[in-house]
Amino acid sequence: MDARLTLISRTSVPNAKKILLVVIDGLGGLAHPAYGNQTELQYARLPNLDGWVQQRTTATGWIYPVRRGVVPGSGAGHLGLFGYDPLYYNVGRGALEAADLETDEIGRGDVTGRMNFCTVDAEGKVTDRRAGRIKDAVRQADALNQHVRIPGVEIQVIPMKEHRGVLVLKGGNWSPKITDTDPQQVGAVPLGSRAVTAGDVAAEKTAEVVNEFTRQAMQVLKEMGPANGVLMRSFSTAPDLPDFNTVYSVRSAAISAYPLYRGIARVVGMDIIKGAADFKEEVALLAQHRDAYDFFFLHYKDPDSRGEDGDFIGKVAALERFDAAFPDILDMQFDVLAVTGDHATPSVMSGHSHHPVPVAIAAPLMPEDNTAAFDEPSCRLGVLGQMEGGDLMPQLLCYSGKMGKFEGFA
Amino acid sequence: MDARLTLISRTSVPNAKKILLVVIDGLGGLAHPAYGNQTELQYARLPNLDGWVQQRTTATGWIYPVRRGVVPGSGAGHLGLFGYDPLYYNVGRGALEAADLETDEIGRGDVTGRMNFCTVDAEGKVTDRRAGRIKDAVRQADALNQHVRIPGVEIQVIPMKEHRGVLVLKGGNWSPKITDTDPQQVGAVPLGSRAVTAGDVAAEKTAEVVNEFTRQAMQVLKEMGPANGVLMRSFSTAPDLPDFNTVYSVRSAAISAYPLYRGIARVVGMDIIKGAADFKEEVALLAQHRDAYDFFFLHYKDPDSRGEDGDFIGKVAALERFDAAFPDILDMQFDVLAVTGDHATPSVMSGHSHHPVPVAIAAPLMPEDNTAAFDEPSCRLGVLGQMEGGDLMPQLLCYSGKMGKFEGFA
Repeated sequence: MDARLTLISRTSVPNAKKILLVVIDGLGGLAHPAYGNQTELQYARLPNLDGWVQQRTTATGWIYPVRRGVVPGSGAGHLGLFGYDPLYYNVGRGALEAADLETDEIGRGDVTGRMNFCTVDAEGKVTDRRAGRIKDAVRQADALNQHVRIPGVEIQVIPMKEHRGVLVLKGGNWSPKITDTDPQQVGAVPLGSRAVTAGDVAAEKTAEVVNEFTRQAMQVLKEMGPANGVLMRSFSTAPDLPDFNTVYSVRSAAISAYPLYRGIARVVGMDIIKGAADFKEEVALLAQHRDAYDFFFLHYKDPDSRGEDGDFIGKVAALERFDAAFPDILDMQFDVLAVTGDHATPSVMSGHSHHPVPVAIAAPLMPEDNTAAFDEPSCRLGVLGQMEGGDLMPQLLCYSGKMGKFEGFA
Repeated sequence: MDARLTLISRTSVPNAKKILLVVIDGLGGLAHPAYGNQTELQYARLPNLDGWVQQRTTATGWIYPVRRGVVPGSGAGHLGLFGYDPLYYNVGRGALEAADLETDEIGRGDVTGRMNFCTVDAEGKVTDRRAGRIKDAVRQADALNQHVRIPGVEIQVIPMKEHRGVLVLKGGNWSPKITDTDPQQVGAVPLGSRAVTAGDVAAEKTAEVVNEFTRQAMQVLKEMGPANGVLMRSFSTAPDLPDFNTVYSVRSAAISAYPLYRGIARVVGMDIIKGAADFKEEVALLAQHRDAYDFFFLHYKDPDSRGEDGDFIGKVAALERFDAAFPDILDMQFDVLAVTGDHATPSVMSGHSHHPVPVAIAAPLMPEDNTAAFDEPSCRLGVLGQMEGGDLMPQLLCYSGKMGKFEGFA
């Protein structure tokens, strides 16, 4: 555990106060020349958010979810906001994709590989890396689970959407530090996996198992075309992060309509509340489960998607939809309410950016703040100042009375 | 040594410029609804401080003495301001309490235990943990120093005020990682001390010595009631921190009427100028010793005490008393003068808080600043910005010309 989380875990104390952290994906924007040099937040009509930040108990600022000069991916941005410094805690995309599977069939210590069912020709060369995007490969996965046998190794294949699946090597004896078998091009044969580092015995053994799996799988799937082959990549193992609830002395839950964000929350140890297909249903779930937890992470996806498309007006509309739902969130009366984003997605850039993201926190005992609107220029002058992702959680704990006095470690 | 102090210690250079750091304990406050939603600093009449920050050469800002989202205890807040990151340097309350003894009889490496002289009945059960709060236990300490004999072990008992004392195990062979003998309740017999971690040989040996000391002490004190027993707790050893004078290239001294703050200063290696019973006498001592040092830490306690009591008007009055004394400090013409606090103690919270604390620095070559008053909202907009405790000392060195150019370590 790094020094910051060590301090927090030794100092945090549970109480009944309720915290809600709303993450608006891709919240931050930039001035767009085609729209009066305004940002999406400035251009949007957001009467509820603006009224909220004008309240005496709401303060604003800017946040760099990882740190200045870093363009956060979805995983890194959220981990930063959750207080897990992505420079310290090694969590790769593979691990987040695996977590995002939302299956109890993967345990801590299991090694997973992303699998494509593919089409190979008579010589074993790949002719279609996605097997014509078949609807699913449930039949193929069943066949592999039934017929592939490697002595002393417990293997499971989990079918996913379309041509996708996951290979799971159960138990703690395997290493994810092996190379892909996916050649990433047609006309090539699947690659033999190797240890990333020569002499890494656990990785060498794991690569042998993967290669034997590939050999047997090609036999089992022979007559099951178009999905008559397998390619694997992004081997990973679930990261062993400090438990969110233990560090922060909370009972936490995550609500998102999108599996990736549920996966990130699961990796840090939050409970996952499933069942929402869109943000409206997310808010309904929040109301329904409000009493059962004292920390909620609520995720709103749309502004990022529209920003990625370079769709300024679409992002504005997404922000206005959030604003329309916001009174229902305010009605739930959380003791501490924070609204921010995991990174900026300026539509003028059509992608994630390093730019800072507005943040607002409402809580009792907040220093005076004169923010007039929830947008980038207004929040820049707020009393929270310019902070990094890791500063957010301890402040939410302080404002909810969940942080004791820090006297030193000894 | 952490990277920051390593950089400073390799870059700082001595010169004749004089720095004064004034720490107003619990300086920061919050708006109080009963007093026009003003903070203590806003409500107080502080003509001298306000006039000082309005000067062209004075700039202001906000400081988080440890970092955002941490509620500093007294030790952590001061260590933060002194540049010793409390997340890196392990200094516990026990070590600060021991340092606060202000006795040259405790050396680096000695293990100390806080001692209560207590009253025990015929069966050895504690009937009064404080021996009726006797005036002092000098007679008992003398008897123990004369009669307790453990072969190969040098032991000293130092009597303190009332029923308190300190057990010192001299030399570097002992470990403080042992459990208390104080059962913290009457009716129980003193506990046997044990190593915190089984198998820790140094700690196990230390616990044996402590238990033998207790056994002999009970014999020696038998007829000396009401103080006829001893209880020990908070075993510690002086932390081995980098020397303040060496790191910062200064000759430093601390002035405080309160032992805890002298103890903190002693732990980092400052000289201690004793003899002040109140702040007025502190200022007189400062004038008297001004020429002998080039760095002074001057501590003013009262605002914290009144804030802890939830006494808004009392804290305001304490701040106004500081303001009345401030011209005498200005008259001493320090080259660099900084005024800040070790943490906020908002009277509306009756305790330490995580909130930022105003800071002001007066020095030549200061960027332009338009601060109108020494209060939280005004200082927030000052040119020093929002900084952390560790940012303060290197800036004071820079403003006094004590920092050379940093070219890198290699």
